[in-house]
Amino acid sequence: MKEEIRIGRNALEQFVAGVFSNLGLSSEEAADSAEILVAADARGIPSHGVARLWRYENGIRKGIMASSVIPSILRETPISLVLDANGAMGMYLSKQTMTKVIEKAKGSGAAFASIRNSNHYGIAGYYAEMAAKHDMIGICMTNTAALGVPTFGRMSMFGTNPIAFSIPGHSGKLFTLDMSTTAVTRGKIEVYEREQRELPQGWAVDTKGQVTGNAGQLLQDMLYQRGGGLIPLGGAGELFGGHKGYGLAVMVDIMTAITSGGVFGKSVMDSEATSARVCHFFGAIRLDVFRDPEELKTDMDRLLEELNNTEPAQGCERVYYAGQKEHEAERNSNLNGVPLSLKVFEQLSAIGKRAGVEFPQPLL
Amino acid sequence: MKEEIRIGRNALEQFVAGVFSNLGLSSEEAADSAEILVAADARGIPSHGVARLWRYENGIRKGIMASSVIPSILRETPISLVLDANGAMGMYLSKQTMTKVIEKAKGSGAAFASIRNSNHYGIAGYYAEMAAKHDMIGICMTNTAALGVPTFGRMSMFGTNPIAFSIPGHSGKLFTLDMSTTAVTRGKIEVYEREQRELPQGWAVDTKGQVTGNAGQLLQDMLYQRGGGLIPLGGAGELFGGHKGYGLAVMVDIMTAITSGGVFGKSVMDSEATSARVCHFFGAIRLDVFRDPEELKTDMDRLLEELNNTEPAQGCERVYYAGQKEHEAERNSNLNGVPLSLKVFEQLSAIGKRAGVEFPQPLL
Repeated sequence: MKEEIRIGRNALEQFVAGVFSNLGLSSEEAADSAEILVAADARGIPSHGVARLWRYENGIRKGIMASSVIPSILRETPISLVLDANGAMGMYLSKQTMTKVIEKAKGSGAAFASIRNSNHYGIAGYYAEMAAKHDMIGICMTNTAALGVPTFGRMSMFGTNPIAFSIPGHSGKLFTLDMSTTAVTRGKIEVYEREQRELPQGWAVDTKGQVTGNAGQLLQDMLYQRGGGLIPLGGAGELFGGHKGYGLAVMVDIMTAITSGGVFGKSVMDSEATSARVCHFFGAIRLDVFRDPEELKTDMDRLLEELNNTEPAQGCERVYYAGQKEHEAERNSNLNGVPLSLKVFEQLSAIGKRAGVEFPQPLL
Repeated sequence: MKEEIRIGRNALEQFVAGVFSNLGLSSEEAADSAEILVAADARGIPSHGVARLWRYENGIRKGIMASSVIPSILRETPISLVLDANGAMGMYLSKQTMTKVIEKAKGSGAAFASIRNSNHYGIAGYYAEMAAKHDMIGICMTNTAALGVPTFGRMSMFGTNPIAFSIPGHSGKLFTLDMSTTAVTRGKIEVYEREQRELPQGWAVDTKGQVTGNAGQLLQDMLYQRGGGLIPLGGAGELFGGHKGYGLAVMVDIMTAITSGGVFGKSVMDSEATSARVCHFFGAIRLDVFRDPEELKTDMDRLLEELNNTEPAQGCERVYYAGQKEHEAERNSNLNGVPLSLKVFEQLSAIGKRAGVEFPQPLL
């Protein structure tokens, strides 16, 4: 039996949009949310894709994520916008907001926005790339539910807090860094738990702050907030630079939550009554405030080519640049369909039945 | 015999400024360069402090770092400035440039600058903090001579490329992240080589791209560009996120060199005829484009307090936030003098003799 199926990208987007519509979202909200979720699967990041559809289903049914909510403008200047999402759909509002940031940057050269009280917004890189496609440097960050443990600590005090950065070369080429600031995210721990494997020494600490290999115990301790959690990028302690990943994670909390007056640190968590109320940050800087964009992109191409052409380590095939694997996966998905695991396929079929939307035929 | 001495901060600054003056720098260039070098030692970052004075002495005597050079303005907008340093003194020009960025940001809310063809500029955090002291978010980056090896590679293709980020709380408190994007810098490798110690598995790879513990061989291979070099933050391969540190290092090359049309990647290196011609990036965003700065700083204080008050891991004493150790060291240096190793003390005394400037009396 095959482990995965492939669904045509448009068909999958229409299915997800149909589910969102039937749950009560407006057609724009449904379409944007579907597009952004499917983009994650298309790029080979299934942790942030349609496998999360049930969470939105839950959130919308419970009323903790809401359709057609009007966000409040907390502050606006020619170069900035600060919003309270009031629990609006994260993906739709984020796309709208990055669109406004790009418009503002067209006028002023650079612009920034932060949003508080939002909810999960998919992959950060999607929004950064929106700006890059307008000949801008695109930046995007979000805080997330607290799972990361500071250097020398034992309690989770920040999220996996991703940073995305995108800039174009010629011919649609993009350098897109989209990285969590912990060594790994919870999804990886869950995979190891399912496979009953020992965690690599450097992913997580236990309730005493000691490096642990026990995925099952860790997930329990994290769930009941007994302590323990994910290690920042760079590892435990300072020997390999873990304090740097810790610093980056806190920087993300600052840019997203401190700039918007939202929830930060250990207080970011899901509850029965609200979503985690996460905060986002968006930035765009026009390339031409620095140089002629065409010359700049020629240099970008040269940089990326040099990285691709450098000699690989013994036993390795290629050296990639950031975003390259994801873009190659996306081209493949566009041609051959978006890959879904059988488990996700079953989950989506069930959601489709509940929402009265038929799941599309797999390709092949 | 004591391993280190302490010199009064003002006396040490005056000595270094005196040396720079006698080498031909203007009095402003000499004073700023001295202040920034000594700031590194005062904060407990001796690798970027007065131990480098001999390099400047060399560079100035050879004419590859020059006094009173006029940088060329390549592009200027209300929110941006791009300069060719033409080999000017990196620290002086960088302080001037961050001052201009802050002035521009006062008018427009945010501003950015990049500089090409510069030379070593001390600690990145110094410039980021200049903006933070004006109620702005301060950002600073620089590329450096190529020593870092990409994920799955074996040749050095980027520098230790630091990123600095600073934002104020109340009462002069600052969160200042100032981090190289490789796991460690070359200085650490040199210390292990002197002490004949095996490197931790995760700092460096050899000419085949395999993790190595042999500091002496590595330094030789790096010197003669045979391959091998420093591993990005996050370690070798992708298991612990090394591709993220690699991505951050390239992002720094982009923000510094691609935006300014300068030298990037493997081409950044010292030669007999020129300095490494490194490129810098400076950014400042006013806090009040987001929120009332006083309210924002109150939240910053709360965030930093929560991090300080979180329970430490078993066997650890405290949890710090980024910059806290350095600021504590600086307060101590201001009271008790700036610490210098005996080796650096002897080096400085010799430089003083050559330049005709007397080295100050150590304290105690």
